[in-house]
Amino acid sequence: MPSSALYRPQPKVLLFDVNETLLDMSKLKLAVPKAFGNKHAFKQWFGLLLQYSLVDTVTGTYHSFPDIAEAALDMTADMLEEKRLSVSTKKQLVSLLTQLPAHPDVPRGLELLLDAGFRLVAFTNSPQESLDAQLRYAKIIHYFEQGLSIEAVQLYKPHFHTYQAAVKAVGVAPTDALLIAAHGWDVAGAQAAGLRSGLIARPGQTLYPLASPPTYQGKDLPALARQIIG
Amino acid sequence: MPSSALYRPQPKVLLFDVNETLLDMSKLKLAVPKAFGNKHAFKQWFGLLLQYSLVDTVTGTYHSFPDIAEAALDMTADMLEEKRLSVSTKKQLVSLLTQLPAHPDVPRGLELLLDAGFRLVAFTNSPQESLDAQLRYAKIIHYFEQGLSIEAVQLYKPHFHTYQAAVKAVGVAPTDALLIAAHGWDVAGAQAAGLRSGLIARPGQTLYPLASPPTYQGKDLPALARQIIG
Repeated sequence: MPSSALYRPQPKVLLFDVNETLLDMSKLKLAVPKAFGNKHAFKQWFGLLLQYSLVDTVTGTYHSFPDIAEAALDMTADMLEEKRLSVSTKKQLVSLLTQLPAHPDVPRGLELLLDAGFRLVAFTNSPQESLDAQLRYAKIIHYFEQGLSIEAVQLYKPHFHTYQAAVKAVGVAPTDALLIAAHGWDVAGAQAAGLRSGLIARPGQTLYPLASPPTYQGKDLPALARQIIG
Repeated sequence: MPSSALYRPQPKVLLFDVNETLLDMSKLKLAVPKAFGNKHAFKQWFGLLLQYSLVDTVTGTYHSFPDIAEAALDMTADMLEEKRLSVSTKKQLVSLLTQLPAHPDVPRGLELLLDAGFRLVAFTNSPQESLDAQLRYAKIIHYFEQGLSIEAVQLYKPHFHTYQAAVKAVGVAPTDALLIAAHGWDVAGAQAAGLRSGLIARPGQTLYPLASPPTYQGKDLPALARQIIG
């Protein structure tokens, strides 16, 4: 049927955000509040981590994601008016970032997408070394043809350069790539850079109401995968 | 004494951040948690407001601070898994941003600095119209020779361009200006852009541990003013 050439082709490459999207952060959601004795501490800490990664980006400076994570623990203490944690406690908490399991739905979703012929690439704000350790620990590294870190451009997602560098690294046009994330800011960034996007609407996550909506939305990765495969 | 020419001269212009630095946000700290019936709601909301202003900046888009504030109320609802607020409640909460009193220490601090011969300029992420309304409501507008909004460059603080545009607008070199803020990210941005900086260490505020420290720190504006005047 020649008319099929008129329809928008499927993306060739799927880029996957890692933290919260593929990996379950429950360990940190328990450990950070426990360390401070304050149940608001995880959300405060992770919010500061994301905010200050962008502070670095817009002020023309760069520190690694684990270094900002450690600094954000001190800022969390100050903002919640709690005692700062010891250096060893901070290091132990930050090291949990590389000891997170995959969400239970993730292997099945990745299998569906791999079987459907998509190229799968991990793409994260974590440094390259952490990314490799994360995917190995979660036992999902074999699904991906490669892992990309924003370390290469020293700008954090959702800066538009990070997505442009990622699609260049995998050798496709922005319109041939689709970013999958559980974060509204990541989806907004990918869309602004000309990629398609898919939101995994995990509990407690949200879209940015002022950005254009994602191409696909699903409650977990298999649900999203079935939409993308079509 | 000719040797005095060797010492670093005082700044000529003092740029003041507005929200939380000059203005007391207690009204919003009460009203936002009350509207959601969730005591975490203010910190979640204000953190999202700051984070998404930077999401706009790094994705090459721009929405006004009040528009992001309103969107952040919906994101707060989703992230706390509470019900979204009605449009009228959201508008009412956001309108409180232009109905905030000055912190009690602020008029005295501004007087000290004005008497010492400094040029005082307000410099904020709020739009120009909101800024004018804020300073009028707080009865401190007469201390300032002008008010500057990042609306002119459509990039949010702490993007380095915002400070460069501000010092250009007041006709001085970056090294002749000093930014005063209660926020670690604002101090970090000013320092990165070559300005000097002063932190008002209000309760629940914090420096960014990975940035260079501010030139001055004080618990309130008069304490900071006395250091700057020297």
